[in-house]
Amino acid sequence: MTKTIDFYYDFISPASYLAWTQLPGLCKRTGATVNYKPMLLGGVFKVIGNTAPVTIPAKWAWFQRDFERYARHYGVPYMLNPHFIFSTVNAMRGAFWALSEGQIETYNRAMFTAAWAEGKDLSSAEVLSEVLSTAGFDAAMVMEAMAQPQNKAALIEASEAAAARGVFGAPTFFVGDELFFGQDRLEWVEKALG
Amino acid sequence: MTKTIDFYYDFISPASYLAWTQLPGLCKRTGATVNYKPMLLGGVFKVIGNTAPVTIPAKWAWFQRDFERYARHYGVPYMLNPHFIFSTVNAMRGAFWALSEGQIETYNRAMFTAAWAEGKDLSSAEVLSEVLSTAGFDAAMVMEAMAQPQNKAALIEASEAAAARGVFGAPTFFVGDELFFGQDRLEWVEKALG
Repeated sequence: MTKTIDFYYDFISPASYLAWTQLPGLCKRTGATVNYKPMLLGGVFKVIGNTAPVTIPAKWAWFQRDFERYARHYGVPYMLNPHFIFSTVNAMRGAFWALSEGQIETYNRAMFTAAWAEGKDLSSAEVLSEVLSTAGFDAAMVMEAMAQPQNKAALIEASEAAAARGVFGAPTFFVGDELFFGQDRLEWVEKALG
Repeated sequence: MTKTIDFYYDFISPASYLAWTQLPGLCKRTGATVNYKPMLLGGVFKVIGNTAPVTIPAKWAWFQRDFERYARHYGVPYMLNPHFIFSTVNAMRGAFWALSEGQIETYNRAMFTAAWAEGKDLSSAEVLSEVLSTAGFDAAMVMEAMAQPQNKAALIEASEAAAARGVFGAPTFFVGDELFFGQDRLEWVEKALG
């Protein structure tokens, strides 16, 4: 039986980016595959009454340093996005198109890299279009897909389903029924797979 | 020069307990000493507008599992206190008496163990008295100290000073000016000391 990790994420989340950079290595070591679960973090927060760390200045100051420290530790590019908090609603809707087309890995790479290695504003249609083109997508076609009712509905449903399953932040991982929260819990995820 | 760790804690915090169990080993390995910084976590939350994880049921469910997992990993006794959230205002006031008397390590051990290894209700005067006596303190004298204005004031001032220094939760550590949040960041604390 193939071992799988359900990976709940939103491109708005720097911790999701950091986790995403570590998944290939983890999968290689464990033989697991990733089941990508895009969601709108703001939608999850709304359902369960959680708030983003950024709303508490001292907490956000700490998270910024913590993310930088982990990025150095992992040896991955990272910058605090100057447009944070940008809207990812279109970028996340597009993830459902990418899932349906078997293009989710290329799509995630394009979006996560643009947001957290290059500091691009994913809320801008112009930027999204450029990011998609650079990644080899037909930008106009993907952006049309972002506006389609089924992809809008898919994002709402996925976020509600995530909250119903116990997700309260990003990134969240499931190995079977066991929930793990935070990019800093990947060691536990790996142990659960082993 | 002696290396020191400022350790901000409240007996209400299971993560503070877990961190506290790891400090002797960390100090042994690094040659550092601990500067104990008792505070009232609820007071800090009030100053900075933070909320306890327990207010979000899904988050609290995760934290409970996470604490149990770390306790097993550390090999230390741990139980979710059935009286949680109990008031620690008197227990924390007493910590200032213990500091002034050079008794803080014995006092911390008594309170942390009672709260998170034995599940005792630290908000109860009867329980506090018993915990103090068992630890070899003159319970009546310590409980009188808890009610003294200077210890009440010390707790308020310490909590405000913690918030002013950037503390937003517990446990928090400082190595020099560098803040580290969470019992799960002790590896970073150790690196900062090395």
